[in-house]
Amino acid sequence: MRFFSDNAATACPEVLAALVEANRMDTAYDGDAWSKRLDGAFSALFETDVAALWIATGTAANSLALAELCPPHGAVICHKDAHIQNDECGAPEFYTHGAKLLLVEGEGAKLTPASLEERLDLVPDGVHWAQPHAVSITNATEYGLVYTAEDTAAIGAVCRARGLGLHLDGARFANAAARTNASPADLTWRAGVDIMSFGCVKNGGLSAEALIFFDPDRAEATRYRRKRAGHLLSKGRYLAAQILAMIEGDLWLRNARAANNASSRIGEAAGPERLVVPVEANEVFLKVTPEEAAALRAQGFDFYDWAPGEVRLVTSWDSDLAHVDALAAAIRAL
Amino acid sequence: MRFFSDNAATACPEVLAALVEANRMDTAYDGDAWSKRLDGAFSALFETDVAALWIATGTAANSLALAELCPPHGAVICHKDAHIQNDECGAPEFYTHGAKLLLVEGEGAKLTPASLEERLDLVPDGVHWAQPHAVSITNATEYGLVYTAEDTAAIGAVCRARGLGLHLDGARFANAAARTNASPADLTWRAGVDIMSFGCVKNGGLSAEALIFFDPDRAEATRYRRKRAGHLLSKGRYLAAQILAMIEGDLWLRNARAANNASSRIGEAAGPERLVVPVEANEVFLKVTPEEAAALRAQGFDFYDWAPGEVRLVTSWDSDLAHVDALAAAIRAL
Amino acid sequence: MRFFSDNAATACPEVLAALVEANRMDTAYDGDAWSKRLDGAFSALFETDVAALWIATGTAANSLALAELCPPHGAVICHKDAHIQNDECGAPEFYTHGAKLLLVEGEGAKLTPASLEERLDLVPDGVHWAQPHAVSITNATEYGLVYTAEDTAAIGAVCRARGLGLHLDGARFANAAARTNASPADLTWRAGVDIMSFGCVKNGGLSAEALIFFDPDRAEATRYRRKRAGHLLSKGRYLAAQILAMIEGDLWLRNARAANNASSRIGEAAGPERLVVPVEANEVFLKVTPEEAAALRAQGFDFYDWAPGEVRLVTSWDSDLAHVDALAAAIRAL
Amino acid sequence: MRFFSDNAATACPEVLAALVEANRMDTAYDGDAWSKRLDGAFSALFETDVAALWIATGTAANSLALAELCPPHGAVICHKDAHIQNDECGAPEFYTHGAKLLLVEGEGAKLTPASLEERLDLVPDGVHWAQPHAVSITNATEYGLVYTAEDTAAIGAVCRARGLGLHLDGARFANAAARTNASPADLTWRAGVDIMSFGCVKNGGLSAEALIFFDPDRAEATRYRRKRAGHLLSKGRYLAAQILAMIEGDLWLRNARAANNASSRIGEAAGPERLVVPVEANEVFLKVTPEEAAALRAQGFDFYDWAPGEVRLVTSWDSDLAHVDALAAAIRAL
Repeated sequence: MRFFSDNAATACPEVLAALVEANRMDTAYDGDAWSKRLDGAFSALFETDVAALWIATGTAANSLALAELCPPHGAVICHKDAHIQNDECGAPEFYTHGAKLLLVEGEGAKLTPASLEERLDLVPDGVHWAQPHAVSITNATEYGLVYTAEDTAAIGAVCRARGLGLHLDGARFANAAARTNASPADLTWRAGVDIMSFGCVKNGGLSAEALIFFDPDRAEATRYRRKRAGHLLSKGRYLAAQILAMIEGDLWLRNARAANNASSRIGEAAGPERLVVPVEANEVFLKVTPEEAAALRAQGFDFYDWAPGEVRLVTSWDSDLAHVDALAAAIRAL
Repeated sequence: MRFFSDNAATACPEVLAALVEANRMDTAYDGDAWSKRLDGAFSALFETDVAALWIATGTAANSLALAELCPPHGAVICHKDAHIQNDECGAPEFYTHGAKLLLVEGEGAKLTPASLEERLDLVPDGVHWAQPHAVSITNATEYGLVYTAEDTAAIGAVCRARGLGLHLDGARFANAAARTNASPADLTWRAGVDIMSFGCVKNGGLSAEALIFFDPDRAEATRYRRKRAGHLLSKGRYLAAQILAMIEGDLWLRNARAANNASSRIGEAAGPERLVVPVEANEVFLKVTPEEAAALRAQGFDFYDWAPGEVRLVTSWDSDLAHVDALAAAIRAL
Repeated sequence: MRFFSDNAATACPEVLAALVEANRMDTAYDGDAWSKRLDGAFSALFETDVAALWIATGTAANSLALAELCPPHGAVICHKDAHIQNDECGAPEFYTHGAKLLLVEGEGAKLTPASLEERLDLVPDGVHWAQPHAVSITNATEYGLVYTAEDTAAIGAVCRARGLGLHLDGARFANAAARTNASPADLTWRAGVDIMSFGCVKNGGLSAEALIFFDPDRAEATRYRRKRAGHLLSKGRYLAAQILAMIEGDLWLRNARAANNASSRIGEAAGPERLVVPVEANEVFLKVTPEEAAALRAQGFDFYDWAPGEVRLVTSWDSDLAHVDALAAAIRAL
Repeated sequence: MRFFSDNAATACPEVLAALVEANRMDTAYDGDAWSKRLDGAFSALFETDVAALWIATGTAANSLALAELCPPHGAVICHKDAHIQNDECGAPEFYTHGAKLLLVEGEGAKLTPASLEERLDLVPDGVHWAQPHAVSITNATEYGLVYTAEDTAAIGAVCRARGLGLHLDGARFANAAARTNASPADLTWRAGVDIMSFGCVKNGGLSAEALIFFDPDRAEATRYRRKRAGHLLSKGRYLAAQILAMIEGDLWLRNARAANNASSRIGEAAGPERLVVPVEANEVFLKVTPEEAAALRAQGFDFYDWAPGEVRLVTSWDSDLAHVDALAAAIRAL
């Protein structure tokens, strides 16, 4: 019974069918009919004109966004637990040609206006110090917390006041949108987000994320950077088709709701005492002793050792509710 | 009737079936069962122990190879018509952090030992000049010419004598292997090739190439570079499965033979006077007047204007022989 | 009797005296009184508001200029014999993070509007090809030819029409200015130059060049890049003082005239048959047989083997006229 | 009365005289007689064969060292207050092409074996995490603390055990050597240091630091990197001469002792209560109220506001003892 990672899940049937359906001769790269529909589909979803590019991974999508927002001699502010800092082997530094990530502390991998301002104030003005050019937040965060539209807008207001770009790592944006019931627009550009990675792979996709520019003109240089990074697949239609299958209906929300529902059940079983942070998306962080972790594993549950005394359990669009309920019972029984 | 590019072709049924078959939960990234079979499958194909990594594009595969073979302050020798110089928007410079490409002239995008030595001799010894660290050749070349095992070995001998690494861009390696009937081993490591990109996408694949290290230890740093470039897909099994479908049988050769056969028919119809270079792989370069090009297009044939007075026609694994014969007839009738 | 390189010459007394005079406590980096005078001194020289930064080497100055004019995914057009292509070990690629240099042929390392346009036209539009963002010329060229104000304006006009920045490598700008008697303004910004390296070291300086931005606002990011490259010396006043000594009087022109005068004498002795290109600055390129070269060396003349059958002789501000006349006589006697 | 920075000090007479003395024609770059003496002079000083390169700034010297010790996809461990992290505008990231700096906490900007091991243990093994390749320490530290030979050896032992390179930022190495009376060898290579920046500019130099490779073979690639960074000055003899003047006698220690003596007087006047950290080199960090800081400034003392409630006072080789004693008295009187 796998609760290890949403990356281990399968592709959902609708996505796979769309990929198979795209197996027709068409123009190479992103000149095909599917790729050309992306801008329109995301503009409809976000209720504003956007430019949307398919990207094979979230790591590349995040890094391309940062390369647009920050020059090599600049800095990006993010949480110390951010995926871009901890889990991408320096991809942001590769794509930005060495911009610095300046780190903020705070519970649940979540930035607040106050913690952001405090970090910004530590950087003196002058050429000896890489100046902040952008802020990056993750929604849902690496600890499964959610930024509401208001939370994001408060961060966005600091960015606007300071002249900083705002990037949103949306690897689990669907889970955040499903949880908050806020519109995609309210969670992003209306709150000041400039560029976002719109995650599909953790939500039932196979090999495609979308990189969304809320100012379409800002996508131009990224088209060159995508090619230069070897990310312009010659048969891009198979990526575009996956994404369209996700968002042209409400599949992305349905899948996310299924995952959120599964994690909520586990979180309720665990109770606030045992939770490291509240369960707001599809991740559950439990405080367990090594013996308790071993006991759960002995019952067939697979999960990730996150930190000493903490484990992470992740649900996904295809989580088996029987497994979920078994896990919930096992946690109650600890 | 499309003869525009082998990138426009579809994925062949066996590859697509393998991808669909891989839609099972497994370990993320390249920890899954399919990815783990790559080393063995390519070691069998090449009759030596190799390390094999899936990469989503040939551009990334080539650039990762060059990053392993050449430091940022070094230079790579290649033909002036090489794909890495002309068609990758500076990807080799991105991945190598700015190594220089030093260019060699010569017919049909093909290097010879003499032209290679001549270029090498132009670089003075000393810190003012980026020193060559590697050579890159493409087989079949960008003009559809083939390096035989002996051709490659002659280049490899120069590389060994000069202490240079040898990279092979094998986007159309299958076409070269099918044409020469040489063993993959003879065309590569026995001829001195250190790292190669083994192309699948132009040969009926969907979204996966293989990067082959003939010294498996040299793959280690590339695993980090692949991650850092955002090319470690979280569901890598779908890429590995495509590649395995290609090489665990003889699909890669069957597909290439079909494409080669189609181009040969066109080349024979054209005759030596009209051909820019002989037809050895799946590309035909014709000398045509603008009027002749227009006449062909008026009959429904689609192709690429390569240079003033030259057009390129590309066949692929799924070229319709009726279309091929129609094209051959139309060329004869010019 | 050294005619090997103007880099081997000494610092002229006025420059050395100014450096010694600057040995007083002052603010670090470029906050001192000397550094603060640079903008004004160069604005007077160029008859327009400029920003001027001291840089320890011409290689760094050129590369910083290119980094301002061209993004990492872009290309710079220059002559195939340009210093930035041939003699800087990839410094432009380092500073631009891998932009490509696209090369133009032509006699005497000199670009013409026609050769420039021809090269530009070879780059297709689209993301597969690094798009030109800037042009770089060298005045005097690496072969000692001079761009007149009109020559430069013709290049500048192409740049403006194409939306390209124009960089001038002025390592020997003083020699060009002395030869043409054109005003510094006419040779640069009035002709369309955006950024130039104003050479001092080859002209009697010790360790300082000036990087001139004809749009002062464009200097801002370069201040960060200079620091980031380790080129913001903590005691910058010693560099600023050298430059001021050069340009606040007419020392830069006096020194260049002396060098030009010496090379002219040698060129006249050689005669047009023996000259590879006309002598217009402080370099003489002679066609000589190996025996002739040996004969000159046997008489005590030291110089550089430029290419098979060609040698380079360089004069400088402190060339001993007795040596120059001895060399002229020896060449006549060949 | 300036206690702002040792960068504001003048060049000492011996250094300036040596520079003037070097104003003779010689071979360009580092082919001259002075540059060729560097290896021997430093080998004598360090009692082992070293390679020594002149570099115009400590920032460039540090960054070149890190580029040799750490690949672009790797990480360097340093203190969170290290100059390379805080005051070089991302120069290490520029030269290493984006390696990550992983930060260690601890008093006085000093690493301990325990804090180093603790940080290392936080990095999981695997391609998702930039793996540590090197450690960088500063002696004397950015807070003026000194690593004894034993302190350094303890860090070096961790590096050896973990397979990490060890870089020493020696911008104020002379002050540390003068304080500890340890031999240069014991403070460096015998303690496990691989490469060091040997500072001169803060110690009476004008524009030259030395980069020392304790394994001379490791200097080879750095010669190319130095050129590529525009740091190979064409008249290098003026830099080499400064360094030789420093180390061929005991000038470097005499100057450092003078600076240390001045800071000690101030530190004694301040007393342990008022000191942020003990005074071990030429920097004094005082706890003062805004009113106290203003009072000192009103008496003509110039210094740097380091942090809320903390000021930094720096002495140098030429500190006027009358000023020093006046300052000491003023601090006592607070």
